[in-house]
Amino acid sequence: MLVVMQSHATEEQVREVCRKIEALGLRPHPIPGAQRTAIGITGNQGALEAGSLEEMPGVGEVIRVSKPYKLVSRDLKPDNTVVRFPNSHVSIGGKDVVVMAGPCSIESREQALTVAEQVAAAGAHFLRGGAYKPRTSPYSFQGLGEEGLKIMAEARERFGLLIVTEAVDNESLDLVEEYADMIQIGARNMQNFSLLKRAGRARKPVLLKRGMSATLEEFLMAAEYVMSEGNYNVVLCERGVRTFADHTRNTLDLSLIPAVQRLSHLPILVDPSHGTGKRNKVLPMARAAVAVGADGLIVEVHHDPDHALSDGPQSIVPEQFAVLMSEIAQIAAVLHRGVIAPVHSSTAIARETLRPAVAR
Amino acid sequence: MLVVMQSHATEEQVREVCRKIEALGLRPHPIPGAQRTAIGITGNQGALEAGSLEEMPGVGEVIRVSKPYKLVSRDLKPDNTVVRFPNSHVSIGGKDVVVMAGPCSIESREQALTVAEQVAAAGAHFLRGGAYKPRTSPYSFQGLGEEGLKIMAEARERFGLLIVTEAVDNESLDLVEEYADMIQIGARNMQNFSLLKRAGRARKPVLLKRGMSATLEEFLMAAEYVMSEGNYNVVLCERGVRTFADHTRNTLDLSLIPAVQRLSHLPILVDPSHGTGKRNKVLPMARAAVAVGADGLIVEVHHDPDHALSDGPQSIVPEQFAVLMSEIAQIAAVLHRGVIAPVHSSTAIARETLRPAVAR
Amino acid sequence: MLVVMQSHATEEQVREVCRKIEALGLRPHPIPGAQRTAIGITGNQGALEAGSLEEMPGVGEVIRVSKPYKLVSRDLKPDNTVVRFPNSHVSIGGKDVVVMAGPCSIESREQALTVAEQVAAAGAHFLRGGAYKPRTSPYSFQGLGEEGLKIMAEARERFGLLIVTEAVDNESLDLVEEYADMIQIGARNMQNFSLLKRAGRARKPVLLKRGMSATLEEFLMAAEYVMSEGNYNVVLCERGVRTFADHTRNTLDLSLIPAVQRLSHLPILVDPSHGTGKRNKVLPMARAAVAVGADGLIVEVHHDPDHALSDGPQSIVPEQFAVLMSEIAQIAAVLHRGVIAPVHSSTAIARETLRPAVAR
Amino acid sequence: MLVVMQSHATEEQVREVCRKIEALGLRPHPIPGAQRTAIGITGNQGALEAGSLEEMPGVGEVIRVSKPYKLVSRDLKPDNTVVRFPNSHVSIGGKDVVVMAGPCSIESREQALTVAEQVAAAGAHFLRGGAYKPRTSPYSFQGLGEEGLKIMAEARERFGLLIVTEAVDNESLDLVEEYADMIQIGARNMQNFSLLKRAGRARKPVLLKRGMSATLEEFLMAAEYVMSEGNYNVVLCERGVRTFADHTRNTLDLSLIPAVQRLSHLPILVDPSHGTGKRNKVLPMARAAVAVGADGLIVEVHHDPDHALSDGPQSIVPEQFAVLMSEIAQIAAVLHRGVIAPVHSSTAIARETLRPAVAR
Repeated sequence: MLVVMQSHATEEQVREVCRKIEALGLRPHPIPGAQRTAIGITGNQGALEAGSLEEMPGVGEVIRVSKPYKLVSRDLKPDNTVVRFPNSHVSIGGKDVVVMAGPCSIESREQALTVAEQVAAAGAHFLRGGAYKPRTSPYSFQGLGEEGLKIMAEARERFGLLIVTEAVDNESLDLVEEYADMIQIGARNMQNFSLLKRAGRARKPVLLKRGMSATLEEFLMAAEYVMSEGNYNVVLCERGVRTFADHTRNTLDLSLIPAVQRLSHLPILVDPSHGTGKRNKVLPMARAAVAVGADGLIVEVHHDPDHALSDGPQSIVPEQFAVLMSEIAQIAAVLHRGVIAPVHSSTAIARETLRPAVAR
Repeated sequence: MLVVMQSHATEEQVREVCRKIEALGLRPHPIPGAQRTAIGITGNQGALEAGSLEEMPGVGEVIRVSKPYKLVSRDLKPDNTVVRFPNSHVSIGGKDVVVMAGPCSIESREQALTVAEQVAAAGAHFLRGGAYKPRTSPYSFQGLGEEGLKIMAEARERFGLLIVTEAVDNESLDLVEEYADMIQIGARNMQNFSLLKRAGRARKPVLLKRGMSATLEEFLMAAEYVMSEGNYNVVLCERGVRTFADHTRNTLDLSLIPAVQRLSHLPILVDPSHGTGKRNKVLPMARAAVAVGADGLIVEVHHDPDHALSDGPQSIVPEQFAVLMSEIAQIAAVLHRGVIAPVHSSTAIARETLRPAVAR
Repeated sequence: MLVVMQSHATEEQVREVCRKIEALGLRPHPIPGAQRTAIGITGNQGALEAGSLEEMPGVGEVIRVSKPYKLVSRDLKPDNTVVRFPNSHVSIGGKDVVVMAGPCSIESREQALTVAEQVAAAGAHFLRGGAYKPRTSPYSFQGLGEEGLKIMAEARERFGLLIVTEAVDNESLDLVEEYADMIQIGARNMQNFSLLKRAGRARKPVLLKRGMSATLEEFLMAAEYVMSEGNYNVVLCERGVRTFADHTRNTLDLSLIPAVQRLSHLPILVDPSHGTGKRNKVLPMARAAVAVGADGLIVEVHHDPDHALSDGPQSIVPEQFAVLMSEIAQIAAVLHRGVIAPVHSSTAIARETLRPAVAR
Repeated sequence: MLVVMQSHATEEQVREVCRKIEALGLRPHPIPGAQRTAIGITGNQGALEAGSLEEMPGVGEVIRVSKPYKLVSRDLKPDNTVVRFPNSHVSIGGKDVVVMAGPCSIESREQALTVAEQVAAAGAHFLRGGAYKPRTSPYSFQGLGEEGLKIMAEARERFGLLIVTEAVDNESLDLVEEYADMIQIGARNMQNFSLLKRAGRARKPVLLKRGMSATLEEFLMAAEYVMSEGNYNVVLCERGVRTFADHTRNTLDLSLIPAVQRLSHLPILVDPSHGTGKRNKVLPMARAAVAVGADGLIVEVHHDPDHALSDGPQSIVPEQFAVLMSEIAQIAAVLHRGVIAPVHSSTAIARETLRPAVAR
């Protein structure tokens, strides 16, 4: 904490603020300046709220100095966190880039398996897809629930994909934890602290999406909630924020990636589908996300987006997804990264085309 | 839905779009214009997503026309909803203005009863206060839980106040429903659809706060979630939105009040405490809120804000609250409204001063 | 300036930062804390940029402490500025509220005189109206230029109104300075520093509108530009900022009024017409603006808004304006303010109705 | 225009709106729907304002359909605009990527020539630098004026760079037009329509930066202003927009690049320096900008940013710039683009390293 006095504050007012700081059990450090005096405060353990000082006579401003996060911070753990998955060579946060792909919603067994096969063939590592859907309207399709999770599990068996899917409350989290390899917490629940704590007690890694208007600090604090309960396998995901701009559904804030990497050891992915809301912007933004240094992508792919029950306009088709995989592999190579090898030998041939000559 | 074709779109492209619309089971209505053709669509039941048409050759833009909300809409129910409370003359959404006041958090029996007595004396109708606190940091005070609810219930008995408090998940909602007169859903949970549905099955009225970056439509759709489960006693609350502006914690968007009143029959309150985050701006914005036509206020009051465990900087002291009550009564009178009479005869004298001569 | 070191910064890194500060001709004040060391800096005259320190090893963050404004500040001039107009009893920033009203654009002599007569009769003090219009499209009506200024001058003669109109470049400012009583700088030009300096050399008061995305500090710095050239008669005006909210054209940020009043001695008005962009929200927000403590209003009024060449949707009709004048007079009375008496004796009768009984 | 009637609107209200549309000289096209009637309007030439209809009984909403821009539109000119420079092989908007680099401000002859030599050696095509600086504070360094332009001209002679610099008013534009190869209009002046018109009469190409809170449509309309006066050589530049996010100075909105390319034929650059405000984010965002498809970059480079008179914190040093050139060349190759060859043979060797093997 730093208290900045007004320029016309009296010495007595400065002393009064110092006394108040001491009365709160803390230590004041007055720094007289040419124009005004500032008072540094030490000894606080995060309990002090600025307001007790802000309204005192002579006080101009109170500035918070310490950062509230601990476990997510590079100060605490300088090395990058690498999230690993049992019985799989796939990891997130290491040298290579990971890709999660699939439909917005799991709509039927046929739809899910069709898309899963195609994204696996193109080299995806995870099947994404919603069994529990947070929809703006109560009258929209709300997901297949456990039935959807079973379909995803079948896709895992058949195509060697890991599966990631969203939990929206404690009940669905119990089931997602049972079926999936990774538990997604959606943007609308980024500050559903009850759900974050439950995810912190889960035995599976958590994919935490940035809230629609979350600052970097709030985003890191949401991850801190999960970690504070003991689950250290947290992967962040930028998915666009709400601004005045109306040419995209959200404004994808790619500068968050280097900003997170400076402050935190946690991996971070990018979702160019929700981040733009427009099919024709997914590929350019996917390339940009890898170029900026993201640890991976989560992308909506649908074999028949015209009839998708949700998010059709932002889903790309499997042919576009194959182009995406090829382009990001080339861009990853510029950053001396590759794309993680796909799981199945059956897709090994497609895979070969993904590593450009320059990366060898 | 309206499809706007590009100016150079061919007639064949227009026909192709019409065919596609018919294939989706809908009816196209082409409107040739001087510069370009537009195609109206009828027959859709909200299921159609714009994307299936947006990417067709010759299409410039797809514009959604129908509003997705039904139960919240004035189209359905032209008369204002008035939310009533059993065994009480207090109601929300009627001619007079209602005031909810109290500490951010219920910290102790002594603190809660002290504040409750003082706000009751000044004419408040509801005691507000958090027993379950959604805090940005997992290391901050998280509320007293059921113990806090019991303290609030005691305050109700002693000072004749109704009580409103926040539920943060299904578990806490069960208890809040049992103890409180009104269930608050906080801004961070405005799109926690699982919680909204549970609130929709509750037997108590719901106070729904606007999310930090919610559009008017999203806010109304959140209310629609509650109503769609059968609970029609919903009161909205504007509490500031997130913008670039840094002179307040949030930007209190008072124009939302007439906007809601035009589209919906639901009552709407204003929270000038979270809406500004600064004690010295609570009174001016409370006056403005009543002047713009809000049905009431929810205000943070603490008898010792310097030692509050949360939100001290934005809590006003009881003396300021008494001034607030007096000022808003005078402003309500300009709009031919009063302030609802307080509950207890013991506060009747204080009350007399609240109705200005002009309102008689 | 305050440099906050990282928690794992070494003592040598702290010393290195101190040496660098000294090398820049400034004085470092290290404050060791429980978790990390902060270093206060004194002696800077605003020239120091944070970047020179931010990238040094061990540095976590650099926080700017001093405010950059001087002449606009209450630190320098504790008393409110009252802007007066020669040969008129009207002033801005004093006890009473001032009202500026008129069409968006001066379209013709007949239109301007019709509106002027009606707003004068209802008690307005200034005729507003654009002779030079900053329009988003080059194909929209751009204003009548000097011809429009002459029409406004005629309206002044006939109806005893002061006139305020916008200058968009140095050429138009020369003419506006000649004809008008007050020079308006529009939101789009709030950081047209060349124009601000020219306005600072003008002999007439300046009405400075907040830019669409200006912070409080940037707004005050724009006023500082005008004052730094010698023109101390500056009146600020909040007119809405750009946010994600789509139910109004802009989001009117009324909390700016108490925020400005705390930091600056300059008067501040509110423009509820541009601030909402919707006719049906002008009256509620005008009431709120006076309730929050604004020194006056600037409102678009048109006798035939359906045929207005600009801003028809947000212009109120003269009958609505008369209601507005009556309502704000009653609200001003609650704040122990009145509305300045109108200029002409011919409107004195209408005026009588504006002061409510309660204010006597 | 499309008028959407309320669901309970009567047939008479629909007819009344149709009559009003005809009275305005336009043609109504009613489209009855299941829930409500919509009325298409044709024949309008942009003169119609929505307000005349929006307030009629039974009207729910009025939606604008036509786009206001013409000359900037791909509808008018499907092929990409390529801006060429006389006596130079450099062009903007063609196959290859162009890079503008240099200090924020031209501070002295020595500083400018030092930076110019280094950026030329690394392969830059343009020297950027401000001779007229729009500064938030009137007390900050405002630029060297014509002296700065002369220094830039000398740098052009010595290092074979083209020069681009900002004009802030008509006076400075006259001089910039005389000395520079390209006239920059800054973000704060994007809606200084007087300056845009003057730039539209200039004989040099214009680099138009996006305003801090400009929508895509407003940005294109600003370009339309320049083109409407006859200057068709306009290059757009995304430089970050203002949002709530506080980890960067602005939020760089890279999705604007594909959005512009879909609607307009004009080239578009990205400024990662102002777009982030942080030196450590310039390289990642520069890579991302080329990956998304931008036609080039404009980057702040300073050989001694600690002593820069402006924007030191966001300036990269020449060594970082050389890395940037190498990285973007490799990323451009993934998109089958190169980086334009530098002007001087003396830099030809450095150049060789920029084209990666894969691009051959």
